[in-house]
Amino acid sequence: MIFKRFDENPLIVPSQVTPSDPGLEVMCVFNTGVTEHNGEVLLLMRVAERPIPEEGYLSTIVLDAGTERPMLKKLAFRLDDPKLVFDDPRVFRYDGRFFLTSLSHLRVARSRDGRHFTIDDTPALMPTEWYEEFGIEDPHITRIGDTHWVTAVGVCFLGVSAVLYSTKDFVEFDRHGVIFPCDNRDVVIFPEKIDGDYVALHRPMSGFSNPAIWTATSRDLVNWGSHKFLMKARPGHWDNSRVGASTVPIKTDRGWIEIFHGATAVNEYCLGTVLLDLDNPLRIIARGDEPVLAPEEPYEKDGLMSNVIFSCGCVERDGKVLVYYGAGDQCIAGAETTVEKLLTTL
Amino acid sequence: MIFKRFDENPLIVPSQVTPSDPGLEVMCVFNTGVTEHNGEVLLLMRVAERPIPEEGYLSTIVLDAGTERPMLKKLAFRLDDPKLVFDDPRVFRYDGRFFLTSLSHLRVARSRDGRHFTIDDTPALMPTEWYEEFGIEDPHITRIGDTHWVTAVGVCFLGVSAVLYSTKDFVEFDRHGVIFPCDNRDVVIFPEKIDGDYVALHRPMSGFSNPAIWTATSRDLVNWGSHKFLMKARPGHWDNSRVGASTVPIKTDRGWIEIFHGATAVNEYCLGTVLLDLDNPLRIIARGDEPVLAPEEPYEKDGLMSNVIFSCGCVERDGKVLVYYGAGDQCIAGAETTVEKLLTTL
Repeated sequence: MIFKRFDENPLIVPSQVTPSDPGLEVMCVFNTGVTEHNGEVLLLMRVAERPIPEEGYLSTIVLDAGTERPMLKKLAFRLDDPKLVFDDPRVFRYDGRFFLTSLSHLRVARSRDGRHFTIDDTPALMPTEWYEEFGIEDPHITRIGDTHWVTAVGVCFLGVSAVLYSTKDFVEFDRHGVIFPCDNRDVVIFPEKIDGDYVALHRPMSGFSNPAIWTATSRDLVNWGSHKFLMKARPGHWDNSRVGASTVPIKTDRGWIEIFHGATAVNEYCLGTVLLDLDNPLRIIARGDEPVLAPEEPYEKDGLMSNVIFSCGCVERDGKVLVYYGAGDQCIAGAETTVEKLLTTL
Repeated sequence: MIFKRFDENPLIVPSQVTPSDPGLEVMCVFNTGVTEHNGEVLLLMRVAERPIPEEGYLSTIVLDAGTERPMLKKLAFRLDDPKLVFDDPRVFRYDGRFFLTSLSHLRVARSRDGRHFTIDDTPALMPTEWYEEFGIEDPHITRIGDTHWVTAVGVCFLGVSAVLYSTKDFVEFDRHGVIFPCDNRDVVIFPEKIDGDYVALHRPMSGFSNPAIWTATSRDLVNWGSHKFLMKARPGHWDNSRVGASTVPIKTDRGWIEIFHGATAVNEYCLGTVLLDLDNPLRIIARGDEPVLAPEEPYEKDGLMSNVIFSCGCVERDGKVLVYYGAGDQCIAGAETTVEKLLTTL
């Protein structure tokens, strides 16, 4: 196996996370950005919360962004209300309108060894903007100079959009708004300019095709253009239904290694590898045939969603590549490998 | 009525347009950009072509972009092939893959009086790029200085994307690629900078909601950011299913008049008006209750699609606003009004 899972897995589970409000419970702590900060491994985790359940009701929280002072509000729907359509643990519709069953915010956890984490008691980034009405999800962190650029998913009544934040300390965040409008997610920014431009991988969605990975370029990280197709799902393979970027690309002599996620039509999510040309990341040098990490452990096979390994990032430390991932859409796990091992798949 | 239709309607019909190749026939000439050029009204028309039909077959043409020298190729499918799913005159699926029944290019027509047009014998812009595999559709033209910026829809296997071209003479065009990736269409650029930035209206699409109009800003027209929600479909109104920008906004003392299109769930397309703040076009001053132009005439009520008025632009001439539109997804018609009349709707 290319990857060795941490013995400490799962690393973080919902019961370890303090809710942001006493009326809420943490359903899931899962897809997590990761970086090194002050010598520690820092996770910026997606924490999904919902109101403490009441018998006979489906309740959720949303941001009421239409007021002077945006605040969270609770919505409750009778489970026997015929206007309620609820057949996915993550989403439901009421009277045709779309809702999520939880609201996600971003929370920091820190670790000296990358395996034992101290979790902040309060959120790092709570939804406050219209494009975060239904939450902030799935952050990826790219460090450029002394700034950490966080690409995440903002969910609102219009759909899921790619949003950008920046921070130097994970205490104060600047909001740069929507960089790729709905529906778009799985955005990662390369750690350096290529041919004078910043480059991002992103995943626009269409009614006509399976989601595919595109590139875009930018001078300032806020305004983006030159959107180009990079890679798509492969019929007959483990990634036959959809693909999206997972980690910030890892620079090697042979090219950029991108660890991406792929899914089958029945939503089994695995990680795979692709090698992109150093000077022209639109040129695919190689794409691994097999997944490099696939659901096997109980925390990956059972969860809010079954059979999900979904990574938003990795760090290189002491010659190792430490990959962190949401497991079963419910908890956080980790696994280690090396650049050399990853290159053997390519 | 706010609008008076031209007595000459329909202005241009498919039989007047020379096919780009003798093996093709022109199915439709319809959604058209419009500008003034060399003292004439210039239309940049969407011309949809297909192979001359053969009994028992559904055939179409696509761009084969994966070769050194991209060229058009004909595809033919037996109508009794069980892998063929064909229930919309515009699109079909074969073995799960998505295709259009026609390939669109852009063609110029010119007129001194805005009513009688001379149509070029050959295309102005033919598909040659991967993002144009299934054609170029629905152009909008914004003149800035001596350059005409053309926003259109590029259709490929990935979906429908917003693409940008520029030209000074409608002979040579520069391609600036995809500015808003799939699915996104109905892009119009304001004719001047606002608060230091170019501004566009665009329409990203989502699996979660009806299409809505957003704004975005740019320094260079090629790289875009700050995507923000502007307006959505209105339940219970004529525009209850989807909305999109139609004309380049018209500057008036009271604000920018945008003539937009709206559609019902049964795809009746009408034109309506909205007034946007001159300095902050995200602020809606007023939105007309009723459509300003709705399908009434035979060429609007019957066509490839029934009950469609779809405009991509207007020109101001001699105190009049001349609006050109695709009628019934098949031919081009025009109607005139004035800024004053439009303002009475707002």
